[in-house]
Amino acid sequence: MAVETHEFSIATNGYCDVRDVTGTVAGLLERSGISDGTVTVFTPGSTAGVTTLEYEPGLLKDIPALFENLVPRGAAYAHDATWGDGNGFSHVRAALLGASLTVPVRSGKLLLGTWQQIVVIDFDNKSRRRKVIVQVMGE
Amino acid sequence: MAVETHEFSIATNGYCDVRDVTGTVAGLLERSGISDGTVTVFTPGSTAGVTTLEYEPGLLKDIPALFENLVPRGAAYAHDATWGDGNGFSHVRAALLGASLTVPVRSGKLLLGTWQQIVVIDFDNKSRRRKVIVQVMGE
Amino acid sequence: MAVETHEFSIATNGYCDVRDVTGTVAGLLERSGISDGTVTVFTPGSTAGVTTLEYEPGLLKDIPALFENLVPRGAAYAHDATWGDGNGFSHVRAALLGASLTVPVRSGKLLLGTWQQIVVIDFDNKSRRRKVIVQVMGE
Repeated sequence: MAVETHEFSIATNGYCDVRDVTGTVAGLLERSGISDGTVTVFTPGSTAGVTTLEYEPGLLKDIPALFENLVPRGAAYAHDATWGDGNGFSHVRAALLGASLTVPVRSGKLLLGTWQQIVVIDFDNKSRRRKVIVQVMGE
Repeated sequence: MAVETHEFSIATNGYCDVRDVTGTVAGLLERSGISDGTVTVFTPGSTAGVTTLEYEPGLLKDIPALFENLVPRGAAYAHDATWGDGNGFSHVRAALLGASLTVPVRSGKLLLGTWQQIVVIDFDNKSRRRKVIVQVMGE
Repeated sequence: MAVETHEFSIATNGYCDVRDVTGTVAGLLERSGISDGTVTVFTPGSTAGVTTLEYEPGLLKDIPALFENLVPRGAAYAHDATWGDGNGFSHVRAALLGASLTVPVRSGKLLLGTWQQIVVIDFDNKSRRRKVIVQVMGE
């Protein structure tokens, strides 16, 4: 059994920017030489999250619309009264989505569905570089 | 340490069909001989998800009502304009719920609560066979 | 590779009580001597969940407000008709949030962001002691 922990960063525009990181994750898995085990994808920070999605242009509109419905940007958040940075909605969205995803690996392949990509969603209220952790564990 | 990756499929009716897979997962764990580690349950595909739930008839109505409230079937989704398959709501629901669950195992037992089952929810807009991945890792 | 499974309990007030368990998790990690791998945090039971959050007073108001918006306490739940315990909203909220979180560990440290804490949320409708499972796996 072996453990490899990698980190990469992506440039995002914030405001529910949905980014496909599947290729990067698959590349790190391939170079690890690990054929059976798990890949954990984790977003360090409290205004981003990770999930899976069919990465196509329609859903890239539907997902921001979802979060705007569930956690409206224009509502009042107590977080904003504390810090004044205006990203209370970003924090709430991120806590709801979650920061970790675990994908099983067999014979060197991520066991994703054909139309299923790993996406990181940046909920913050500004452009930023966003760190992503990828950890491969297995044999 | 050992890794075992299994796959099984269930027949579902779609439309937020909630299925209890705890027995199947526990059976795979038992046959693995692994006593301490994790079980990862993963739904490959972009219109299903996994979580835990007290599997009782009331909640089998409440959970579909939840997703109908949060992501209504009758709303407009850009995904549907792209593909015309009418299951934009299914994709959005699945991305919100998440595709992976990790359950700790000790002394050969899943460390679930007494009233807590592992459920796969099929959000698609038709009946289908739904694949589920179960990976046991530990010693 | 080694696996260590720990359990601790916290006293909560229920009703979306958000508790920071980062210090306890970090302490268990440190005592394990494991430097690279994963920590799985799991809530056994069907009325609590786990996520990450900037643990500050504003968000401790915003998160209960979120769940009150998405899954109102005063709505009708079929679960309550089954059992009469009045915590249908608690079950639904818990299923939505999810019961597991996986945090990567490198060089003995949880790879959390600076402002990111691990929180357990108790959604039940009463005060209770809430069990939390922490499993460290790695080398």
